[in-house]
Amino acid sequence: MSEVYVIGHKSPDTDTVCSAIVYAGLKGYTAARPGELNEETAFVLDYFKVPAPALMENAAGKKLVLVDHNEPAQVVDGGDQAEIVEVVDHHKMNFVCNTPIYIHVEPVGSTATVIAKHYMDQVKGNPTHAGLLLAAVLSDTVIFKSPTTTDEDKAIAAELAKIAGITDIQTFGIDIKKAKASIKGKPIADVIHVDFKDFDFGGKKVGIGQTELVDINEVYDRAGEVTAYLNELKSGKGYEMVVFIGTDIIKEGSELYFAGDAAMMEKAFGKKPEGASMWLPGVMSRKKQVAPPLEKAFTS
Amino acid sequence: MSEVYVIGHKSPDTDTVCSAIVYAGLKGYTAARPGELNEETAFVLDYFKVPAPALMENAAGKKLVLVDHNEPAQVVDGGDQAEIVEVVDHHKMNFVCNTPIYIHVEPVGSTATVIAKHYMDQVKGNPTHAGLLLAAVLSDTVIFKSPTTTDEDKAIAAELAKIAGITDIQTFGIDIKKAKASIKGKPIADVIHVDFKDFDFGGKKVGIGQTELVDINEVYDRAGEVTAYLNELKSGKGYEMVVFIGTDIIKEGSELYFAGDAAMMEKAFGKKPEGASMWLPGVMSRKKQVAPPLEKAFTS
Repeated sequence: MSEVYVIGHKSPDTDTVCSAIVYAGLKGYTAARPGELNEETAFVLDYFKVPAPALMENAAGKKLVLVDHNEPAQVVDGGDQAEIVEVVDHHKMNFVCNTPIYIHVEPVGSTATVIAKHYMDQVKGNPTHAGLLLAAVLSDTVIFKSPTTTDEDKAIAAELAKIAGITDIQTFGIDIKKAKASIKGKPIADVIHVDFKDFDFGGKKVGIGQTELVDINEVYDRAGEVTAYLNELKSGKGYEMVVFIGTDIIKEGSELYFAGDAAMMEKAFGKKPEGASMWLPGVMSRKKQVAPPLEKAFTS
Repeated sequence: MSEVYVIGHKSPDTDTVCSAIVYAGLKGYTAARPGELNEETAFVLDYFKVPAPALMENAAGKKLVLVDHNEPAQVVDGGDQAEIVEVVDHHKMNFVCNTPIYIHVEPVGSTATVIAKHYMDQVKGNPTHAGLLLAAVLSDTVIFKSPTTTDEDKAIAAELAKIAGITDIQTFGIDIKKAKASIKGKPIADVIHVDFKDFDFGGKKVGIGQTELVDINEVYDRAGEVTAYLNELKSGKGYEMVVFIGTDIIKEGSELYFAGDAAMMEKAFGKKPEGASMWLPGVMSRKKQVAPPLEKAFTS
């Protein structure tokens, strides 16, 4: 059998990378990543002394297990010429294949939760795997503050923490988040692209980036730069709309910057933007609170 | 919480109906069916003294768990106005949803295998559920003769048979298959529609019906009728192609009748049709051996 690669989505985050590493380990596959690690993920891998998966820039001709994503737009380049053999995910589904494959998706806070739940017996014997999965749960649920969080995420995180020997989950979560929580001194394009996903909403290409911060003022200070870059991206790359979500994990809300039709933003979020952005209290999750209303606005 | 209905695909078969009944029982949901039972399924429910699920002709506004299918074309009428809350299946995926849901698909011989595998502990205490699942495995794998059969199907069927108290799996399988294995005296439209599925192959509507027989001569005797009806269906219902698979479960092969472009059939199966049909030795499975090459022919 040719080699099977477990790979996460473009703009890899901690859940997608840690899930790929652990799932590959559990199944005897090889982990890969479609792009550079962000600072948070680099911190986590360093913490557990685990090497980064090898970079795979093009997957044409390869056998792939997709973790933490399934939509074609988020798959590594060349994915349309790869053979997808499994999908393990926690996102909405937009997936077509020509032959039955193993697909496991659950509406929980992280892909790590799905993996931990079904392989807990094996994870019990591997504190490093448990630690990586715990970091991924904490990262993707924003330390259980995201509305995507379920009771299962919390229960499984507690179990993983015991195995990994991590006594204070909260502190560990904040340490992880701090690792990428400042945008000071970073080029704005890097800030917007570090966690950026393309969507197809009723045939329209929409891009949505997100950054979590411990202080939203870091974004307010650079609002002009953000808006200029979003407009550049929109006109240069054929987007109908580009959105950037600056999430304050302490205040628990997000400032949404956008380039595109302001009326569509109002239709989606029921609030008139002030200029090129709007503050949405309580909004933490692109997946649950930003992408679905935008998709609805574009398709209804 | 409003009622959740577990429902199988149109033209319900034994796997889709039995899986719906058992999964609904396991999860506290309500089983439903989108159409009339075929003779085989009626035989199985009668055998285990289990009532048929209630008929649901339109699912608009309902909460649905889809078992044994996921493609929009196979979903009960009104399914596009229903809320799909789970999918449990063993077919290729062509599914879109707007929010993450529980999806579990495995490339095994029946949906019953997927359910039995993950709920074996509960099934152990319910011989009727075990019997229904066993019947579904045997039906969908054509008593393990279909190339969709996996070692897991066989192992799980053996375990189910023990629980259900069925000592001779082969004989039980043949009894099930015999229940709908004759087309004598049946209107040809009924024969073709008893297990008929619509597909979207690259934007073209293609319908594929299948009947399993213990003697293919029953179909040969009515070839003219079959061809006439397929052509009527094609022109009347906007199909690009309609195919009818007459499968001889003893000879282990199928005669494929079609209305549509003969060149496309040749492209798909690498064999020139003789008139309006062709014999394909070893071909037993619509899912694995007929739909994929046809889709490839239409889309490449």
